[in-house]
This record gives sequence, structure tokens and C-alpha cells, in this order.
Amino acid sequence: MKNNSSNTAPIGVFDSGVGGLTVAREIMRQLPHENIVYFGDTARVPYGSKSRDNIIRFSRQIIHFLETKEVKAIVIACNTASALALETVKEETDIPVIGVIVPGARAAVQATRNGVIGVAGTEATIRSETYTKVIRKMNPQAVVIGKPCPLFVPLVEEGFAKHRITEEVIDIYLSDMRQTKIDTLILGCTHYPLLRSRIMAFFGEKVHIVNPAYETAMDLKKVLCEGGNENRSHEAASCQFYVSDAAEKFSHFANTILSYDAGAAKLVNIEEY
Amino acid sequence: MKNNSSNTAPIGVFDSGVGGLTVAREIMRQLPHENIVYFGDTARVPYGSKSRDNIIRFSRQIIHFLETKEVKAIVIACNTASALALETVKEETDIPVIGVIVPGARAAVQATRNGVIGVAGTEATIRSETYTKVIRKMNPQAVVIGKPCPLFVPLVEEGFAKHRITEEVIDIYLSDMRQTKIDTLILGCTHYPLLRSRIMAFFGEKVHIVNPAYETAMDLKKVLCEGGNENRSHEAASCQFYVSDAAEKFSHFANTILSYDAGAAKLVNIEEY
Repeated sequence: MKNNSSNTAPIGVFDSGVGGLTVAREIMRQLPHENIVYFGDTARVPYGSKSRDNIIRFSRQIIHFLETKEVKAIVIACNTASALALETVKEETDIPVIGVIVPGARAAVQATRNGVIGVAGTEATIRSETYTKVIRKMNPQAVVIGKPCPLFVPLVEEGFAKHRITEEVIDIYLSDMRQTKIDTLILGCTHYPLLRSRIMAFFGEKVHIVNPAYETAMDLKKVLCEGGNENRSHEAASCQFYVSDAAEKFSHFANTILSYDAGAAKLVNIEEY
Repeated sequence: MKNNSSNTAPIGVFDSGVGGLTVAREIMRQLPHENIVYFGDTARVPYGSKSRDNIIRFSRQIIHFLETKEVKAIVIACNTASALALETVKEETDIPVIGVIVPGARAAVQATRNGVIGVAGTEATIRSETYTKVIRKMNPQAVVIGKPCPLFVPLVEEGFAKHRITEEVIDIYLSDMRQTKIDTLILGCTHYPLLRSRIMAFFGEKVHIVNPAYETAMDLKKVLCEGGNENRSHEAASCQFYVSDAAEKFSHFANTILSYDAGAAKLVNIEEY
């Protein structure tokens, strides 16, 4: 834990694009006094179809950028980067870095009754089997069934979350999983909570849906408490948004997800970090 | 025209990902003696949702990379980069650079009988109105109707080109255009020829479908002839593939598009150029 960081220093939160806003929203709700610096890598979105080496390089550049903002903790609000880069990048900085996989896995292990857990995620997240490994460490008897759903991110990014076509794509990707005995499903990509009601309707009440954002914010709170780093200021918290491309489109999207005016996002040339 | 370039020097062809292979395929067909160096920017695909500044920066880096391969001509086999970056980058190099927009526009102007031309493309290509401007220069009376189809690229990249869901997405995007008087439609993104038969079936025989790849290869031939730069060697031509990410996935895709074994694609850290 970095001791020279001020309690009023912000939390750094990053994602490949807009998906991580679902995590930022949960942090704002649970930790309303914390300032946030959010970075969305919109120039290189999506991450889910890309390789481990590039995801590590992208994550490293973003952490260097967040360090210039003197953040006191970093949340990788992207399942793909949490699965592929967290273990490497957390060794390279003094700032505590947490991802979304361990919190999501823990929530699923606590929720399941029969030990059969589904994970929907990007191609890279599922292929890495990180959720499977983390869940098995917590419960060696657990059965984990992963399914890559690569079109979910573009459907959300292009504004089709509530469109009929999305129902059909859910059906194409998740019908096989509905035939299994899963009683718990992890939304293993931060874009997927934006399809939550559709996915819940598809599986029905028997399947408990886990959004790792809630547990991730809880973990962040614990990390800050343990380091004595909570923001005790009574000033209104701020959230600044940075992106690597298309700032206007991002701001428009952010305003549909967040409950207040996100303001204008600022453009960063992330390849320079 | 660069005079010190050897006739056996390769043609550089680049795209945001696999889409430009439809152009490379046409060059191989029309210019079977020319060697090709293909670069697919798979680390930053898709381009169509990104800004002019970033598309110019990406294109500049790729041209620097292709210069290290001593190419004698460059084909921007990507409509988004042709629309947003060609004018800027062609001033910055001695190597002739051609894009796909002028050839595609010319083919459409020659094909149309009533002067009403449709253009399907990415968000960035359509918003730039480059096709409209280029067509109007050739035929000031032409009416151009553009339509962004942002889900077509992920559908192709994720292997859904022949899936029923793609028919529905075609219907969602192009139904309005079918109600207009267009008699010619430009496939204004190099991924879209992979949906050609579906789009042709949707519009029926009344609408002529233009794939700019054919005219682009013709233009390239003309540029090489004018510069006396055709490859007159009788050795078998070669094609080398480079990508910025996920080389294996790219090679797999290339083998489904090309009529011969594309071999392994090599990985390049494009941000270093």
C-alpha cells in the first residue's frame, strides 16, 4: 500500500470502452465520497478478441497514465484485462490494483447451491479459463461452464441492447448453457450487465445472475479501509472521464448509463504512456 | 512516382483487419505477377467507429511500416482509412498511394442509369461524406444516399456472414434504402463483399452492386504501368501477411477468403512505427 497518497486522491478505473461504466456506477453508489478518474480505451476497443500480449501492453500504458493522475487505487473494470493482465501489472506498481474476476467468482461461489456455475464472457476471457481457475480455488468441486459471446459488446456499443436482434443473439449463444444444470451465471464482461434484464428473462428465475460490479466495489472499499485511505473529505466527489478516441460518442453513452451529467470526456493519446 | 524502386518490389496493402483481403484477392487475380505485403491492424480493429485523428495516425504508422518493406505502391484497402486519411498521408510519402473510394465511386457513376446511388459503409465513412463528394465531382446531378451499418464488420469478423441473424441485420439497416430509387449500391467497406450474396438477394436484380475492389486493382495496374513499375519477373509472386494482433485467427480467416494457403501471419508492434 502506497502511504504517501492523499485520502482525497482519486480511484483510477479503466476499461476497453464504455462497459466499465457499470463498475464505476457501482463504486459511486457504494463509495459516494471517492473521486474517480475513468479511462476508456475507445481507440482500441474491443479487447475481447485480442491477445494476452497486447492486453498486457494496453493495460500497462493505461496504468502509467493513471499514475500521472496520482490515483490511490486502480480498478481494472474489464474482465478481459482482469483475466489476462492483472497478475502481471499488479507486480509493476506500488498502487493497489484490483480486478473484477475474483470478486465475481466469490459472489458466484457464495450464490450457487448445486456448484454448477456458468460464465458468459469475451473470447479472450473464456479461453484464458481464469474464472474456472479462481472458482476452483474457492470450491474445488465446482463445475464451471464458460461461453464466449463476442457479438454482445458490439451490440451494446452500437445501441442495440434493447433491440429484438439482441434477444436472438442471446438465444444463439446461451441456448446450450440453458440445457445444463447451472444455477448461477456470471456476467463475465462489464458490457453484459447492460443486457441483464434480457439475459434474466432468457434463463428465468432458477438461475441467479451475478454482476461482479457489486462485489468489486465492496473489495475496493476493503482495500481502502485496510490502508486507511478512505476519503474523509465532505466535499462533493468528482468523476473525470478520459478516452483514447471519440470523446463525444463516449460522453453520450456515459449519460445514458450514469444518473448524472458525466460532462465532456477528455482525449488522451494513450500510446504515448 | 518513386524511380529507384525495383519492379520486383512488393505492393503494400493495408486494412483495419481481414476485410482488405477482398481487395488483395482482386489484386492477385488481376496482377498475378506482383508480390504483396499485407498488413491487417487487428490490434485496433474496427476503424469505422473511430475518429479522423486516430485513423490518420494509425494509417501513418502502417505506411511507415510498409516503407520498411520497400513497397513500390500502397493500396489503402479500407474505406474508412481511404475516406479519412488518404488525402493527408499521400502528401507525406514519395510512394504512390491509392484508396478504394475513387475507384468505387467511378464504377457506380458508370453503372447507374437514374443517377441515384446508395452507399453502405461504416459510421466514419458515411459521416465523412467522402463518397458523396467524390461522386458529385464526377456527376454533379447524382443523388447519393448513405447508410452506416456498424454491426456488419463484427458479424463478418465473428464468422456470422452466412448466419440467419445477418439477414435480419441487413433488413434492419437497409430496408429504408430499398424504399428509395437507388439503382446502384456501393459496398463501401471491404468487409461487405463477404455479405454480397445476402445483400444482392435483399435488393433483387434491379439494384447493381458495386464492389470497389475490382476497380481498385484496375487503378493500381494503371499506376504501375504509368510508372513503368510492373513486375516483369516470371518468378511466382509471393504474399506476406503481417498483423498487429491475433496472428493465428487472422491466418485462419485468410485461408477461408483466399484460394491458396496464406501461411502464417507475422506479428508487428505497429505503435513503434
